[in-house]
Amino acid sequence: LGSLAHVRILKKAGYLSPAEASKLTGALNKLYGFISKGAYKYDASCEDIHTDIQNKLYDSVGDLALKLHTARSRNDQVVFSTKLYCMIEIAGLWTDMANFNEAVKRLADKNKDIVIPGFTHMQHAQPVYLKDYLMAYVEMVERDDARMKNIFENMGLTMGAGAMAGTPIDAVKYNISSGHLKGLENLFNIKPTSNSLDSVSDRDFVIEIISALSIVAMHMSRLAEDLIIWSTREFDFIEIDEAFCTGSSLMPQKKNADVLELIRGYAGRLYGNLVSVLTMMKALPLTYNRDMQLDKEPLFNSFEIVSNELKVLAALIKTLKFNKAKIEEHLEDESLYATDLVYYLVDLGVPFKNAHTLIGKLIKHSIDNDVDIKDMSEESLKKMLCKKVSKKEILKRFSPKFSVESKKSIKR
Amino acid sequence: LGSLAHVRILKKAGYLSPAEASKLTGALNKLYGFISKGAYKYDASCEDIHTDIQNKLYDSVGDLALKLHTARSRNDQVVFSTKLYCMIEIAGLWTDMANFNEAVKRLADKNKDIVIPGFTHMQHAQPVYLKDYLMAYVEMVERDDARMKNIFENMGLTMGAGAMAGTPIDAVKYNISSGHLKGLENLFNIKPTSNSLDSVSDRDFVIEIISALSIVAMHMSRLAEDLIIWSTREFDFIEIDEAFCTGSSLMPQKKNADVLELIRGYAGRLYGNLVSVLTMMKALPLTYNRDMQLDKEPLFNSFEIVSNELKVLAALIKTLKFNKAKIEEHLEDESLYATDLVYYLVDLGVPFKNAHTLIGKLIKHSIDNDVDIKDMSEESLKKMLCKKVSKKEILKRFSPKFSVESKKSIKR
Amino acid sequence: LGSLAHVRILKKAGYLSPAEASKLTGALNKLYGFISKGAYKYDASCEDIHTDIQNKLYDSVGDLALKLHTARSRNDQVVFSTKLYCMIEIAGLWTDMANFNEAVKRLADKNKDIVIPGFTHMQHAQPVYLKDYLMAYVEMVERDDARMKNIFENMGLTMGAGAMAGTPIDAVKYNISSGHLKGLENLFNIKPTSNSLDSVSDRDFVIEIISALSIVAMHMSRLAEDLIIWSTREFDFIEIDEAFCTGSSLMPQKKNADVLELIRGYAGRLYGNLVSVLTMMKALPLTYNRDMQLDKEPLFNSFEIVSNELKVLAALIKTLKFNKAKIEEHLEDESLYATDLVYYLVDLGVPFKNAHTLIGKLIKHSIDNDVDIKDMSEESLKKMLCKKVSKKEILKRFSPKFSVESKKSIKR
Amino acid sequence: LGSLAHVRILKKAGYLSPAEASKLTGALNKLYGFISKGAYKYDASCEDIHTDIQNKLYDSVGDLALKLHTARSRNDQVVFSTKLYCMIEIAGLWTDMANFNEAVKRLADKNKDIVIPGFTHMQHAQPVYLKDYLMAYVEMVERDDARMKNIFENMGLTMGAGAMAGTPIDAVKYNISSGHLKGLENLFNIKPTSNSLDSVSDRDFVIEIISALSIVAMHMSRLAEDLIIWSTREFDFIEIDEAFCTGSSLMPQKKNADVLELIRGYAGRLYGNLVSVLTMMKALPLTYNRDMQLDKEPLFNSFEIVSNELKVLAALIKTLKFNKAKIEEHLEDESLYATDLVYYLVDLGVPFKNAHTLIGKLIKHSIDNDVDIKDMSEESLKKMLCKKVSKKEILKRFSPKFSVESKKSIKR
Repeated sequence: LGSLAHVRILKKAGYLSPAEASKLTGALNKLYGFISKGAYKYDASCEDIHTDIQNKLYDSVGDLALKLHTARSRNDQVVFSTKLYCMIEIAGLWTDMANFNEAVKRLADKNKDIVIPGFTHMQHAQPVYLKDYLMAYVEMVERDDARMKNIFENMGLTMGAGAMAGTPIDAVKYNISSGHLKGLENLFNIKPTSNSLDSVSDRDFVIEIISALSIVAMHMSRLAEDLIIWSTREFDFIEIDEAFCTGSSLMPQKKNADVLELIRGYAGRLYGNLVSVLTMMKALPLTYNRDMQLDKEPLFNSFEIVSNELKVLAALIKTLKFNKAKIEEHLEDESLYATDLVYYLVDLGVPFKNAHTLIGKLIKHSIDNDVDIKDMSEESLKKMLCKKVSKKEILKRFSPKFSVESKKSIKR
Repeated sequence: LGSLAHVRILKKAGYLSPAEASKLTGALNKLYGFISKGAYKYDASCEDIHTDIQNKLYDSVGDLALKLHTARSRNDQVVFSTKLYCMIEIAGLWTDMANFNEAVKRLADKNKDIVIPGFTHMQHAQPVYLKDYLMAYVEMVERDDARMKNIFENMGLTMGAGAMAGTPIDAVKYNISSGHLKGLENLFNIKPTSNSLDSVSDRDFVIEIISALSIVAMHMSRLAEDLIIWSTREFDFIEIDEAFCTGSSLMPQKKNADVLELIRGYAGRLYGNLVSVLTMMKALPLTYNRDMQLDKEPLFNSFEIVSNELKVLAALIKTLKFNKAKIEEHLEDESLYATDLVYYLVDLGVPFKNAHTLIGKLIKHSIDNDVDIKDMSEESLKKMLCKKVSKKEILKRFSPKFSVESKKSIKR
Repeated sequence: LGSLAHVRILKKAGYLSPAEASKLTGALNKLYGFISKGAYKYDASCEDIHTDIQNKLYDSVGDLALKLHTARSRNDQVVFSTKLYCMIEIAGLWTDMANFNEAVKRLADKNKDIVIPGFTHMQHAQPVYLKDYLMAYVEMVERDDARMKNIFENMGLTMGAGAMAGTPIDAVKYNISSGHLKGLENLFNIKPTSNSLDSVSDRDFVIEIISALSIVAMHMSRLAEDLIIWSTREFDFIEIDEAFCTGSSLMPQKKNADVLELIRGYAGRLYGNLVSVLTMMKALPLTYNRDMQLDKEPLFNSFEIVSNELKVLAALIKTLKFNKAKIEEHLEDESLYATDLVYYLVDLGVPFKNAHTLIGKLIKHSIDNDVDIKDMSEESLKKMLCKKVSKKEILKRFSPKFSVESKKSIKR
Repeated sequence: LGSLAHVRILKKAGYLSPAEASKLTGALNKLYGFISKGAYKYDASCEDIHTDIQNKLYDSVGDLALKLHTARSRNDQVVFSTKLYCMIEIAGLWTDMANFNEAVKRLADKNKDIVIPGFTHMQHAQPVYLKDYLMAYVEMVERDDARMKNIFENMGLTMGAGAMAGTPIDAVKYNISSGHLKGLENLFNIKPTSNSLDSVSDRDFVIEIISALSIVAMHMSRLAEDLIIWSTREFDFIEIDEAFCTGSSLMPQKKNADVLELIRGYAGRLYGNLVSVLTMMKALPLTYNRDMQLDKEPLFNSFEIVSNELKVLAALIKTLKFNKAKIEEHLEDESLYATDLVYYLVDLGVPFKNAHTLIGKLIKHSIDNDVDIKDMSEESLKKMLCKKVSKKEILKRFSPKFSVESKKSIKR
């Protein structure tokens, strides 16, 4: 794609005649066709893909291929190709993210009536809708998606930096768009460099991307951890489909959620890739240095891991089952409703801070005397809280549904 | 500021009467006044700043202060305050960046005629304008600036998450803007949370910011490295003002650019801060966990370092002097002009690849025979290159000015 | 301490007369006394502690203090002092480690009869002694201890590097030991440098130490995670003393193990400190550069965090209580004993692989038909496994005690 | 090798008859022979190498192969194999280190009379022997070597942990040595585990190794940086053999030391690998979790990179040439000898601090008046310094040789 654009530029600049440009374009389009179909055979003995394409072009059009070198430099080519690769990968990632979000939303919708104990510090806090818990991950991925959009839009795809000092071709001739390319319509717009030294020295976009991918991997590691904990025998909130587990012929009931463990662990790989590129760029003198070539493996690897994580988790989520009975047992924990009782008193006119103190005492009384609040008499409740309370209203507050519905602050 | 907003919300929700709200607002504005003037005395025996403000408010308005607790939770408060802090710091950073860019631009403008050898692999490549070299750093900081803008705009300042399950106050009442606050006009707009679990669990913005600050620090480490190398006795391109160096009473000529060395080294501190928060967030179950409190030190420290770096470098740059004579010596290196000679032949009609080969041979001949091209006869040049060449035109190409002016691809 | 040693060297070298040396030693010992008693008042306006000591020495002995500069350089002083600091801190850490191990061992001993379900992949695997689980952490800390010993022994405390080129004093005169220093007997032996350029450029020991401390912090984060999970309402294996938790006046039963969460999160801080110093040292030209000064904060901070973690965990462990009843419920999970049944068959002469297959089928049968193996008839067991089995022997294998006692491979 | 040892254990424990053990040993030795000769064909469709070996063993000895499973678990196998791999790699690394050191020592010896300007802060400090500069890297690698020895010796190669709870075989039977294995004589001694939970959970050794390898890579990045700077046109201290550079057909004089740039950049890769494994292990509950499998790639990759770096640098160093003439020019810098002049005055009885001040003034005078000290009259020198000075003695101090020889503090 870079060569196709360069041909157009050389033609505009008069370095290639229309006929020459047409011939080169034809030959390059043929190679691009092979690549698109996965039929391109890379010759691993070449220095790199650019040399390989150049060789194949030479086989096809002979000496004319050599004209493609005019006003061109590997330093500029490499940064162009890497940026274009990133744009294509980001576009693919958006699909993965959309599929992940779709899977989570469906799961949320399918289980929209389930209420679960919400956790802070891994301790019971308040009842929440399962769907709200699940949608928290959609929020995260939507931020991830937006982050990628910012990176994509600021990518700054340029040509004309040459080795580092620019080329003799007028800047204006470097304005090229992908408008005419099948499947890539408007994916990119090439512009002339506004600073050739910066263009060949810049790897900000690689760092930004691996950083954004690290955040995605961090999100996925949190989801993995939650699901691993929920699938312990002790929690038993969920059942993970066997397809995502390794079993044991000896202990057929044992299902190790290996896939989730790997996703949890891969966060480290992403962080490592980020450190790798950041360190490589530290204190590197301008302009291009060979160290910068070491950005490729961490970059490719990071895209691959995160794309796979999103795909696998989307598939896993589709098959996730919730153990409603077990979850409901845990919702019987009366202290989950403490806040609801406080707001009941506040609604009755008790100042907030006093309401808070009274309910705290009530729950402590319940624990110390090993008696459920539900089993206390209306009389003793009135005595401990305030005269206006009715047992009926208090019992209403011990309902998961009532609790979650009374939270009106969330703009869904 | 968070408490001031919360008072407005409680009033809208009916938890505070207009009189109560007015009294609390007055008391809070008074505290805010102290803070703005730097006259606020923090009581270090308090658990945190929130408790301290609460205590001072109690001293001022008594029991009414306790009503501020209504529908509020530390988890939500902490994330709100941290985001607001980040927005204020980013606004400050924009000034630092603007000042840095201004200083570099002035230096570039002041030395707009100086040409220097451009480097790739730390070897001479082609002549470039010093101003272009300098402006490469402005390009970097402009990207840094844009990155901060994206973060600022996506910050998502919300209220209403409560401890993690939301509050009984209607979402719509959480729409609050800073429009009326002196000095903060329209700095922020508060919105209701769209997912309370995510709101209290999210530290993406901390990671994003430290990542973006790490990239700034990386840019500054590169500038520092370039300046350190240029101020070696061997390069001797520049003179750094004594104010930024430590000297030695014994060796008065020795000026160690300590400030630049520290800036180079601080890149590591930023990367470490980034790893610190990324690791802390890895596989953390939803929702809030106390670990998340460990985001503060790395965040504060990162802003402080980068802001100082930009300030110090802006000051240093203002006093930077270039050793023109020394730089010009280095521009006599004939091989710097190889590309220019190639384009001369191409303009004469020699196919690019052939031109490339011919000039390569010419330079090799010059080195092998220890004879400058400038000293070769027109005849021998014609013989080695092509008949059309004139010595006059070739000599023209050995001019730094001619070389940089012939590069037209850069859109300035 | 460094100055005291340097005085001895200068005396041996003839730069100080015995009387001068004696006077300086007296004055330095007095300052050292203040430091030891915590009564030393550091003047923060000084460049660093070395200048401060020098000033105080001047106040005490006048011009004689200036002689201490002879054959001395800050570069050498700084590396000496940092190494000595590390040695003293390591010595303190050994005490922390010993106390931690002692606390764990006591807890293990106190609960030596408790058997718990052992976990792999956070799923039940086999019964293990609680004491063995606990002693796993002692194993880790013993490795940590050994690692610190290696670092301590290879510290290479030297003098004589000067600024980087050595000094005029004979190498042999740099052999100094701490034998005569109260409280520091034989803590250190100073030797002459074997390479002065390396001496002032070396920060390996800082990296090694932060790396070893990172491993300790990683170990502690694992312990913290286990304890946090075990203290969830769902697991309910343990009770953590209130002193290490923050509660809620509203939900008095809620005990957030904040201390453990912070320890879990601090692992990130250690990793960040490690990255910080590693990055700072990357590609740093020989010899000393000011960047290297940035090793101090990460180093000091790392020692402080890890020392505190060990102290706090030792205290927490002393008060840890196990919920035996709850644990025993979980031991009723028959699949925990699958391996024991396999070995029973092997002992009866069934080839291992066959035994494995038979027990797998038995457990699957039990799950599929929702019948406990314990409730199956001897006849049907004989039919499913082999004729030789007796129900009595099989029931014996469902004992946690029997299971753990049958594992003889561990050398305790 | 692990299977061969396991056969011996099973035989001692009576699970295998002598004939069975002998048959399995024969078949395993045959496979080992293939592996040793590089003739082993790995079947990539297998889950892992352990399954592949098991399959090939089954092809060879049939059902008997299944007995090898007795008292064995993948968790234990994996940690054993990884430790053994590490030991073999470390042994290989020692050879690489020895060869590197040998190459540096030879280069040092070959150029033992060359004196160079020593640098601090990248500024001229004092003259030093080139050999001392070079030997600084030998010091570093000797520390690296010692660090690997500590890791090797504390590796703790054990068997008998089973899945995590141990096995029914007596601990004593797990004592196995490699004494009888050709080429591996006494490379390893297997011991019974002292804590089976720790054994399968431990990846300390992986972190320790990558940390130690990171330090090696850091050392190599410093050497690379020094050589890159020294090979700039401006420094021109050295000539790097073309074999280690990439050239340009256009600029035949341009030699980019790509190999050194890559070595500089690879430090980042090592740091990233370290972060990757550290993060993966953070807060991982006991015992084995699948995340731990992600230790392999970073570990293998780290050994490979560092081993290659040592090999390539050893080869590069063998061909390194020093540009003596250029270096000598730089030694004419009079300020390099300031310390030597100070010691001259001290030897004449001037108190150190005064000598220091006097020489500082002298050099400042020389710079301010643009006059070399060498060109000043004896009279004016006496006036500025002290009566006892002789110009002859002062001139002696401006000799590089005199300067380096007068530093006696280094124990070579």
